[in-house]
This record gives sequence, structure tokens and C-alpha cells, in this order.
Amino acid sequence: MSEAKRLATPVAPGGRIGILGGGQLGRMLALAAARLGLKTHIYSDERDAPAFQVAAEHTHGAYNDEAALAKFAAACDAITFEFENIPETAVSFLAARKPVNPNARALAPTQDRFAEKSLAISLGLKTAPFFAVNSADDAAEAFARLGRHGVMKTRRFGYDGKGQAKVASAEDASRAFLAFKYAPSILEGFVDFAFEASVIAARAGDGTFAAYDPPENFHEHHILRRSTVPGRLSAAQIDEAKSIAKKIGDALDYIGVFCVELFVTKSGELLVNEIAPRVHNSGHWTLEACLTSQFEQHIRAVAGWPLGSTKRHSDAVMENIIGEEAADWRTLAATGGALHLYGKSEIRPGRKMGHITWLKSG
Amino acid sequence: MSEAKRLATPVAPGGRIGILGGGQLGRMLALAAARLGLKTHIYSDERDAPAFQVAAEHTHGAYNDEAALAKFAAACDAITFEFENIPETAVSFLAARKPVNPNARALAPTQDRFAEKSLAISLGLKTAPFFAVNSADDAAEAFARLGRHGVMKTRRFGYDGKGQAKVASAEDASRAFLAFKYAPSILEGFVDFAFEASVIAARAGDGTFAAYDPPENFHEHHILRRSTVPGRLSAAQIDEAKSIAKKIGDALDYIGVFCVELFVTKSGELLVNEIAPRVHNSGHWTLEACLTSQFEQHIRAVAGWPLGSTKRHSDAVMENIIGEEAADWRTLAATGGALHLYGKSEIRPGRKMGHITWLKSG
Repeated sequence: MSEAKRLATPVAPGGRIGILGGGQLGRMLALAAARLGLKTHIYSDERDAPAFQVAAEHTHGAYNDEAALAKFAAACDAITFEFENIPETAVSFLAARKPVNPNARALAPTQDRFAEKSLAISLGLKTAPFFAVNSADDAAEAFARLGRHGVMKTRRFGYDGKGQAKVASAEDASRAFLAFKYAPSILEGFVDFAFEASVIAARAGDGTFAAYDPPENFHEHHILRRSTVPGRLSAAQIDEAKSIAKKIGDALDYIGVFCVELFVTKSGELLVNEIAPRVHNSGHWTLEACLTSQFEQHIRAVAGWPLGSTKRHSDAVMENIIGEEAADWRTLAATGGALHLYGKSEIRPGRKMGHITWLKSG
Repeated sequence: MSEAKRLATPVAPGGRIGILGGGQLGRMLALAAARLGLKTHIYSDERDAPAFQVAAEHTHGAYNDEAALAKFAAACDAITFEFENIPETAVSFLAARKPVNPNARALAPTQDRFAEKSLAISLGLKTAPFFAVNSADDAAEAFARLGRHGVMKTRRFGYDGKGQAKVASAEDASRAFLAFKYAPSILEGFVDFAFEASVIAARAGDGTFAAYDPPENFHEHHILRRSTVPGRLSAAQIDEAKSIAKKIGDALDYIGVFCVELFVTKSGELLVNEIAPRVHNSGHWTLEACLTSQFEQHIRAVAGWPLGSTKRHSDAVMENIIGEEAADWRTLAATGGALHLYGKSEIRPGRKMGHITWLKSG
């Protein structure tokens, strides 16, 4: 792997930020970059990617098309991405040409559930109990060691509940591993949490760190339904959540915005569930409740700008608009909340079509 | 003039809003439309218009290029504009093909200072004393009737102090008229106001009206420097300002956002100064301090959507970034305010390059 490029000077207004991925996160990143006077170039393998509609330039290409990637890199001053499941080869290829952040080294541990949880443990953080599963025998043995029901998860490429199976017996565990087609997996002990939360944080190239107040999150069918800030976290838990994020950001020498999903147990412990190396659905409320949104914050970090304020001026509730719910856009437009629709041409079950944020005070 | 098209049904998400003009107002309108899942198509005679960078489609064409205008109209579901000095012929041409709002009938009185002030008087509103000037003799006579110093202004195509001259004598008045190359003008009595204010309001196709809290405005060298909300207006003056806007909006059967600039006299009277048939610089703070910004509100009105809430959740100060000030973007990025840079490739003296909004409470 050739040396990764580092950003020597900030990308000045008029400069070009490349974004891999053209879904709603790429779209909201592009909108935030525009506000700062930066141009965006979206690269997506989707022909009609929503982010294309708001970017100065776009490339429709495969993530292994080196000619297209090289042309894209040449047209950008700094590059980032909207989702973590980009082929590492694409990231390395681009990083040899232009600064890519978060960089491949920071990205790797977050792309593998085992590495991710091992990192948390190595930093003195807590997680649910977990065991590596690389064979059907491992699966049965892991279940025996766990001694209670749990969740089998593939180590890589899972999102919104994909690549997950509940297991209540050693046989379940082995069966799940077969169903995952022998993909390296983990067995995780089921956590009877009080509620879920997350902390969205940013780290700049100079190590500056800033975290938003952690929202409480409510999932339905493995998809985020609602984030509420403030949630039920105590002041001490809010501080602890931010400190967890800081430890992880520093350990990864991370540049950009990331999210740490947390389980808050009934005894008040914060367990690290997942690390998402990107802007996150549970941070969408920052668009309305903070002067610097998570999207702008990420652009600032990857463009080498100073981080913005993460101060929250209002309480907020963010709710996702999923699948068919988007068909009722006239009603959604009249709720008094801030409506965001993602420009997706097709409504599909479970697809995130938009979100609404209401401010509760301020 | 053929019959103007009216919007039969709201433009659904995925639909296309055409915007004439590609400066910062068109750009911020496009960003707001994107948030609602609407696509924008910018038409501008400027090759490198800032709004092109954030729109799904753009056309670079002259405002009298009927072939380009026809193609543009065909590609849009509803059309609006970012500035009032568009040739009426272009508006009529487009309006025969697709709904254009605000429409030509609403636009006309706002494009002529004499008609504008006459409208205000006809509605029982107050203005500075004014006289039509169509000849050098008119100029001298108007000055005599005014009996004190004033300002000569061309009736059309003035902005940011262009086409204006202070006059302290009949000779000054005649000379100003000559300097304006005999363009139809008005002589306006100088108002020794306490401060300036404005009210940004919206009116939907069904007559629904909504106004934002009026900011106090401070101008420097005829260019808006700062808007503060709340300003020094009393509760009664705030109500009166909104009621002035409602009278004007209703009289024009207006669809979209408009701004009424006001002089607040030392005795507390509100005088109508100008009506701007568009989103307005003094309303930029609505992006941060309200859930529905003036830009989104305008898009909602012209797309046939319900108006959003004009509630202000925070106090705000908006300051323009003018000319060379933009070169210091690193400092501006670190003030803790919300920074907006307009993507203009060239810094020119007096050019509006961006703005910053700070929230004071919330």
C-alpha cells in the first residue's frame, strides 16, 4: 500500500470535496459543504443517486473502476465517504492520490465487529460479552461459554439488522453461522438494556475533539425510529458518553465525524455497541438544534477547517420517515417540524425516505 | 399576453422547481428545495452562477433567449425567480407555459418605485413624501414642492444604492435626473428615521399568510450590514409591520415570500420604503432561528405546499460578509456563528460574499 496523502493546508472556499456514496448522508454532506462555499463531487455506483441532485459534479462508477476513481481523485482536493462498507481497495487507491478521511487505518477496526469490540475493551470500555465465531463448532462453543441467549452477527457488512440472528441454543448458533454462509461472525450476549443512546463526535486533524449531547434512540425492526435529545441519560452519563467517544477517536487518530452507539443498562452502565465511522442517523437533529450540524462538522474536519460549536440551543426529537410513510408527504409537510426528504425516486419497504425534526424548546 | 398558467396541484417530492437567477438567493432557494426532496433547475445568464453548483440541472442562457427559456419551462413543474429585475417579457413567456410565482401582476408594482409607493398610499399605509420626476423641470418642481433635501431614485432597476443621488437643491435634483440619463425617477423626501426594519412574509396560493418577526436592519454604504431580531420595534410595531405586509400581500394577490423594508421614525411611525418581491437579505437569519427558513417558505409557496411555521426559536444577529472580508474565511469559520459562503469565484468590492448568523439565546 502506498503512503496515504495528508492534507497540507485547509481546502479553501471554492475547493472541491469528493464524497464516495450518494445516498442521504452524502446528500446532506453536500448541502453542508455548499453552505461553506465548498464544491462537492459525488462518486456513486448508483445511477440515480440522491446526492447527485445537489452536487457540483458527480461520477457514476463502480467502486473498483480505477480509471473513474483516478479521474475523481484528480478533480478533488479532499475526499471522504458516507458509508463504511466501501471496498478498502478503493479507499487505498484514492488515499495514494488525495487526502482521504477518515483514513483506512481509522476505518478498519470499525468495519469488523470483532475488532471494534476488541478495541473498546482495550481502551477500558465496556461491551456486551462477545466471542469470535469462525466455524460451526466455534458457534456452539461460543454459545456454551456465553451461557444464555444472544445474537449472532457477521463481523462485516451488517447494517439495519442485516446479517444478524437471535440465538437461544447452541444449535441456533451453528445454524445462524451456516445461514451466514460461514462468514466470520461473532456471538454477542443479549443485553437487557434500559434504553439505547449514541454519541456523535468529531475529531479534527490537530486532535481537537468535540461531541454533541448524546440522544436517546429508539429502534423498530432494527431501524432507527426516533432520537430524542436530551434523553434519559444523567449528566454523569452524558459526560461518560462523550469521554468514551474521545477515547475511541484518539485511539483511531480519527479525522471526521463518528458515532458510538451505546446500550445503557438498567444498572446505568454504558456499553459500546457499534462504532460508525461517519455521520449518523441519530445525529440528524443537529441540523436544527445546533449551529453546526454533524454534516458541516464532518466537512470542516475533512477540509482541515476548525471544528464548529456542538452547543445545542434547543431540545429536539427526530423521527425517520420510512418506506410508505413518505407517500403522505402533504401531512408530513404540515406538522410544524423541519421536514427532510432525501430525493429517492422509489419508495421501498424499510427504506429511509426522509426525517422530521421538531424542536421542543428554545 | 397569453393567459398565465396556475398551479393545479402541488409539486410532489421529486418534482422540479425552476429558478431564474443563480446568485446567492437562488443558491439558498435551491438548498431549501433540496431539503424538501424537490429538484431545482437554475436559469442564469451568468456562466459560472453560484447556484449552478447545488442544482440538479442548470441552463446558462440569456433572459431573452426564447428557445432556451422554452426548454427550461418544459423541464420544470413550477418556476420562480431570485431577483425582481427580470425582463417582464421573460416572465410572461414562461408564465404562458408553466406556473410562475410571484406572477407578473404581483411583480409589476414592485419593479417601479412610483407604483410601489402609490400602492402603499392606496392601502392607507405611510411612506416618505415622493414625487414623480419625468423631466428636468419636474425635478426642480418636485424639489420646490418637497421643500427640503431628499433622494432622487430611478423608478426601476435600482439596488444596493445604485441609481440613487442625494439632492439638497433644485439644481441638484435636475443634475441627478440628467445623471440618470432621463430615466423616469422619483424624488423622495429624506426621512430622519430612528432606525430601519423589515418584515419578511409569505403568502400561499390559498391566501394563507405568515410573517416572521421583523428584524432591525443597519445599512452601511447602502448595503445591508446587519440584521438583528428582535430589534428595537415594540410589540405594537411588530404587529403593525406584519399587518402592513399582509395588506400588501393581499393587494398583490401575491404567492411566495416578499419583504417590506420600513423606516421607523423617531415618533414611532412605520413608513413603507421598498417592497422586494423575493426572499431578502434581511431574512437570512431565519435559516438558523426558525424551523422554516424564508427560502423553504418561498419554495413551499411556489410549489403549492402548506406554509411552514414562522416561529422564531432564538434571537439572532445576521451579518453580511462583503468584498475582501471573505478572504479572512479562516477567522470567520471560527466565530461560533453559522457561516454561509456563496460560492462566488471572485471577490469584488461591495460584493456580498456570504453571511454569518449568531444565535443569542434559545
